[in-house]
Amino acid sequence: MREVMITGVGSTPYGKLEGRSIESLAASAANAALLRAGVERDEIGAVYLGNFAGGALAGQEVLAGMVADDLGLTGGIPCTKVEGACASGGIAFRHAVLAVATGQCDAALVIGTEKMTSATGAQVTQALNFAMDNRAEGPSGLTFPGLFGLAWRLHAERYGTTRDDVSAVIIKNKANGLKNPLAQMGATLTADVIRQSAMIADPLQLYDCCPVSDGAAAIVVVAADRARNAADLPIRVRAAVQTSGPARIAGHDDLCSYLTTRRAAERAYAAAGIKPSDLDLAEIHDCFSMAEVIHSEDLGLVPRGKGAKWAREGRTNVGGDIAINASGGLLSKGHPVGATGVGQIYEVVKQLRGEHGNQVKGARLGLSQNVGGAGVACTVTILERSDA
Amino acid sequence: MREVMITGVGSTPYGKLEGRSIESLAASAANAALLRAGVERDEIGAVYLGNFAGGALAGQEVLAGMVADDLGLTGGIPCTKVEGACASGGIAFRHAVLAVATGQCDAALVIGTEKMTSATGAQVTQALNFAMDNRAEGPSGLTFPGLFGLAWRLHAERYGTTRDDVSAVIIKNKANGLKNPLAQMGATLTADVIRQSAMIADPLQLYDCCPVSDGAAAIVVVAADRARNAADLPIRVRAAVQTSGPARIAGHDDLCSYLTTRRAAERAYAAAGIKPSDLDLAEIHDCFSMAEVIHSEDLGLVPRGKGAKWAREGRTNVGGDIAINASGGLLSKGHPVGATGVGQIYEVVKQLRGEHGNQVKGARLGLSQNVGGAGVACTVTILERSDA
Repeated sequence: MREVMITGVGSTPYGKLEGRSIESLAASAANAALLRAGVERDEIGAVYLGNFAGGALAGQEVLAGMVADDLGLTGGIPCTKVEGACASGGIAFRHAVLAVATGQCDAALVIGTEKMTSATGAQVTQALNFAMDNRAEGPSGLTFPGLFGLAWRLHAERYGTTRDDVSAVIIKNKANGLKNPLAQMGATLTADVIRQSAMIADPLQLYDCCPVSDGAAAIVVVAADRARNAADLPIRVRAAVQTSGPARIAGHDDLCSYLTTRRAAERAYAAAGIKPSDLDLAEIHDCFSMAEVIHSEDLGLVPRGKGAKWAREGRTNVGGDIAINASGGLLSKGHPVGATGVGQIYEVVKQLRGEHGNQVKGARLGLSQNVGGAGVACTVTILERSDA
Repeated sequence: MREVMITGVGSTPYGKLEGRSIESLAASAANAALLRAGVERDEIGAVYLGNFAGGALAGQEVLAGMVADDLGLTGGIPCTKVEGACASGGIAFRHAVLAVATGQCDAALVIGTEKMTSATGAQVTQALNFAMDNRAEGPSGLTFPGLFGLAWRLHAERYGTTRDDVSAVIIKNKANGLKNPLAQMGATLTADVIRQSAMIADPLQLYDCCPVSDGAAAIVVVAADRARNAADLPIRVRAAVQTSGPARIAGHDDLCSYLTTRRAAERAYAAAGIKPSDLDLAEIHDCFSMAEVIHSEDLGLVPRGKGAKWAREGRTNVGGDIAINASGGLLSKGHPVGATGVGQIYEVVKQLRGEHGNQVKGARLGLSQNVGGAGVACTVTILERSDA
């Protein structure tokens, strides 16, 4: 397998982007990524596009080919949309890396895109539930907020995690979002404000949930020997792992730990030859505050049971033991589902280049983790400065 | 790249399969494919699932991981849904072949599935239009029947193709379907009956259109050196090509010829080192009668302009110059969108093994072609008996 480098990244802001179509968002991000990647458009040999609810929420499928056409990638290259719920973006990235690593092409384009805010709340809730097993588990009435509410209760019982511990994750991510120009809703919050917000799925409240978002992100990956013309510092892909896990909530042996993440982490650390403590930063899948808690523990970034407590102690801040979601994460940057996994990698690249608005000083090694459904899919990506 | 063999195939019947969910159809087909593939379940290293409208029509996404879970593929392998409208199945197959050919794993499972008949006609029409550009071209009112109606008018003007010429394609495929136990609607038709059927998009009439279908198909591919335990004759993959073409109707320079198919054909013949006349049979994407006409010409199976005339002369019958859609094709076997490309390969495998209900005598080399949207994607697969 050949070494693969990221040479171009692009992103739209995340938020309620009125008047922008799902495909125009994708094209904007991709054009930005292509502009500085140091490869010509006709050198792109494959397109992978991550999208979840293009059909249900935006009335548009075949987005991979459509966006490639818009970008002038007219050489007949394979253009593939992949879907793995909220992990769609990470899965797209892995496939582009594989296309280059295995020699199918020397350069590939990854895009993630989603348009959610034009739909009603009920439509969005329904579409998000397509990521669960709607026949086996839908009738239980358990939606994703409920799932993480249950996990929280268990975490609290087992490790003594409190409302204010979990609030520290939100306060950190909302503050981080204020330093990210792409973020949908950075904010200065207090534990009091969070405690007074609407109850969603007890004990999970309003600020524990990420917003509904539009947005797109894109990445160009190239064979290492084709990275020399890049306008910006190339970033080395040390690992790009995709795993599966129990598809149903009833299949989990522990709601506070996702088998799919533990597997992806183990395989990614092995592939990269590193341990969690070598990492300077991580962008992880905080669709809910409690998700950051669980995933940071499963990834071995934080000791088991300490996911929220470390946030409260400032150890997952920029400047702490490990910077988790310096971008603001899904809670603050937003969660345009199909774009999220690609956008996380965008953020890690910006950090490793030293160009981030909320820079982790001297960052050389970063991780991103993207989870789909109730843990049915996970991708873990490990990136490194190419001069490291 | 390693040589890849098909060792297991499975399929549900196509049709209105009441009481069956999209995921149970997929699991049925996959279990059948795994049963005789000569590999253990824990040897499957990747799952690719082709599906188009799981969200919109069946309320279910993350099908790749869900079905893998149902199948007992619990080792955490990457499970990926791919979507390229009606070419989703062919794209899934190509990715599984790549996974094995590039050494990511020694065996991979391909599934295609769709559940369409529970939805209303209006919902199906809307979902199928997700495969077009709904913003740029939707307002024109042109749906897929209209597109092939326009192509027909052009073909008639240019080559003198008549209603009865095109009817010969339908009569052949409907008769072929009677010999395929999986087919949704085989029939004995006459040119008169077709001429008297309802007008859909002048000159295209009712029998020119494939039905709306439920169904699933599955294939196991393995590295050639792992094929020895297969219960049935392994089938060699000589080419598995995926291309893109203009995403919009307005981007086609000729509605009677699809760039994406011409490119896929050229690349597939080159990869396999064969010419069209070497083929014994072809399963091609006859979502409409006129689609078979156009695609058979683009694939070089029939001289330009003769797609319908050859059918009328019996040259595309079983026993003719080349057997086209001996399975009944989409017109007669049915078109569960995400399953179609996988089901076509199932049919070619059955032919090359000499096990088909409508057997092409001595078949050694077969092709399948799967088209997405208005020509935005195409896959062409060339298969050969492994004792050839």
